[in-house]
Amino acid sequence: MEYTFSNKISSLQPSAIREILKATSDPSIIPLAAGNPAPDAFPVDEVRAIAKDILEKRPIDALQYGVSEGYQPLRDTVMEWQKNDENIGRDFDSVLIVSGATQVMDLTTKVLCNEGDTVICEEPSFIGSLNCFRSYGCRLKGIPVEADGIDVNALEEALKTTENVKFIYTIPNFQNPSGATMSLEKRKRVYELAEEYGVIILEDNPYGYLRVSGEPVPTIKSMDEDGIVIYAGSFSKILAPGLRVAFGIAPQKIIAKMTVGKQASDVHTPCLNQMIVDEWFKNYDVKAHISKIQKIYKKKLDLMCDCIDKELGDFVEYVRPEGGLFIWCRLPDNVNMIEFVQKAVEKKVAVVPGNAFLMDDTASTQYIRLNFSTPSDEGIVNGIKALGEVAKEYRK
Amino acid sequence: MEYTFSNKISSLQPSAIREILKATSDPSIIPLAAGNPAPDAFPVDEVRAIAKDILEKRPIDALQYGVSEGYQPLRDTVMEWQKNDENIGRDFDSVLIVSGATQVMDLTTKVLCNEGDTVICEEPSFIGSLNCFRSYGCRLKGIPVEADGIDVNALEEALKTTENVKFIYTIPNFQNPSGATMSLEKRKRVYELAEEYGVIILEDNPYGYLRVSGEPVPTIKSMDEDGIVIYAGSFSKILAPGLRVAFGIAPQKIIAKMTVGKQASDVHTPCLNQMIVDEWFKNYDVKAHISKIQKIYKKKLDLMCDCIDKELGDFVEYVRPEGGLFIWCRLPDNVNMIEFVQKAVEKKVAVVPGNAFLMDDTASTQYIRLNFSTPSDEGIVNGIKALGEVAKEYRK
Repeated sequence: MEYTFSNKISSLQPSAIREILKATSDPSIIPLAAGNPAPDAFPVDEVRAIAKDILEKRPIDALQYGVSEGYQPLRDTVMEWQKNDENIGRDFDSVLIVSGATQVMDLTTKVLCNEGDTVICEEPSFIGSLNCFRSYGCRLKGIPVEADGIDVNALEEALKTTENVKFIYTIPNFQNPSGATMSLEKRKRVYELAEEYGVIILEDNPYGYLRVSGEPVPTIKSMDEDGIVIYAGSFSKILAPGLRVAFGIAPQKIIAKMTVGKQASDVHTPCLNQMIVDEWFKNYDVKAHISKIQKIYKKKLDLMCDCIDKELGDFVEYVRPEGGLFIWCRLPDNVNMIEFVQKAVEKKVAVVPGNAFLMDDTASTQYIRLNFSTPSDEGIVNGIKALGEVAKEYRK
Repeated sequence: MEYTFSNKISSLQPSAIREILKATSDPSIIPLAAGNPAPDAFPVDEVRAIAKDILEKRPIDALQYGVSEGYQPLRDTVMEWQKNDENIGRDFDSVLIVSGATQVMDLTTKVLCNEGDTVICEEPSFIGSLNCFRSYGCRLKGIPVEADGIDVNALEEALKTTENVKFIYTIPNFQNPSGATMSLEKRKRVYELAEEYGVIILEDNPYGYLRVSGEPVPTIKSMDEDGIVIYAGSFSKILAPGLRVAFGIAPQKIIAKMTVGKQASDVHTPCLNQMIVDEWFKNYDVKAHISKIQKIYKKKLDLMCDCIDKELGDFVEYVRPEGGLFIWCRLPDNVNMIEFVQKAVEKKVAVVPGNAFLMDDTASTQYIRLNFSTPSDEGIVNGIKALGEVAKEYRK
């Protein structure tokens, strides 16, 4: 039988990029392409003790059906934590526990967008979120990211001239892939513009707690007196991604619709996993753990930057990020970026070609994305050295 | 701000039914409305031992990101199990691990349907799946369910006269809510019709292993030489629903698209949960466990039928199901069904009004759905007794 697929899913073709990414599953390849947290950042002993305790004392709660909104104690924990830590949450806000932060993007798109509606994104932006918006048949309108975040003039122009914009998608902290952090001034301006044009902001902050230098900047959600911001937070980078527990905080009217959407798509997030996260917050020093992983990431980020400066200093340009997981490197104009990436794979190093993060992933760019959290320290040193060898071929 | 929601999600309004269902969260109410497995059917000790072992020996595998297709050992386990047990799976088939079987419905709809396409459903049918199809803007075409399954003549007529039918959704075993099991003859006919009209079959079989009497009937998927059946199976009813692990088996070309859809919506099913299911299959006697829970359900089903015959024998009509979780009861014509349900809640018993399972849930029906797996034996006795008291008010 010849299968006919929906228009929205047909637009998500496996691309040349994905073929290159497949190389990352080869264990002999140094993984500078992934976005995995460092395994030594996982609180393994704590999770083991918590899981044992839950399955001894409250096994039925962990194994029976739960409610779509999420495990109530975890919902309370998240609201209190985010209120105290980030001044997030007003009386009109509520929280939905989801199965990884990508599900916040999924449910936001489901409840706000009809096919053909436009989502304004930073360009470049996280491929996973872009594919989520595409999977609902949305049009993507890209706004350039500068060193201090989204180009707010271009954003205003887009809001003025684009029809049926339903939301603005932004990763203000250590943006994926650019590493840029949006300035406070720009955050305020993005909020003003969203309010003026009656558009929702979807603020995705998976890396916020992975700051290794500089001063924290308030989230856009912390300014949300008008109920126009949907905030996505995650435990993937501070606890463990394999548990698939994250949350959305938004006005109750929006959360109610997202909950109906979640019920229709996967009913609820696994109970055991939600209980593990909640007990971790209640019984362990989460702040101390975050300090610990910040040190791990600072060391890896510094190491990778040192290696780049040594091996590729005269070849690539990059802005040192203040946190997150990624470094966004610009290759010289005379270098064919895709060819460079392929040569790197031949030298057993996987990096992501920058076009993966564009609204039109067939467009050309000189950028590649490097990840410093997944590889070992040795992998970072050898990986960047190998990229230096590839660079040599262009320097001849 | 006034929020404007997508057309597809706006159609999913909270209904009078959901308000009645809220009563089930009140612990003083006898829960004959839910669909929860019996807690004493959960292999608690086994899950505890397995989780401990995984988090001691392979914690990073359990906590790190996984792949969207699912944990490979579990994929292999599922294919082998379903091949041996059900003759499911041909060379062209593949498996996708999902976060509960509802996600198979979700991804099937995402990859096959544009807004406005039609899904043919049994009527009545599972409200969760109907809402899933509605959440993609699909039209629902209902085909009556008879004691031996879907009315195949009405199905043929619908296929002949309805445009843009993308798939037929069926629960052949102990259908939710009717309890009906489709005969072998009808299964063959449904397959023939799907082939003739070039339409996919989505076969949902969550209750297949909960047979308590009669002879097993081959699944439609076991007849699938042409690659036209997407099969949804689940561990929710044989292991535990709170883990949220289920699977879809379908031709690889369809699974590939569903995998892209899953990646864009929740990335992957939690690793720890997938590993728990896989280790359960590898280290424990799953067949013996299934025999054990069949005995639990047979006892509860028999008890509820006995109570109905005693308390409501002259009042309701029902066909005794050969398995599953539900009994579908028809009230006398002179009874206002919604009023009966409300009176039941006043007597502290929750049942589901049958219109919840109709394509148009504002239509009227004389049916209510009773669940026998969630309540204790005492709850069954007292719950049906209370319904008998409500019935008395109509007998006066």
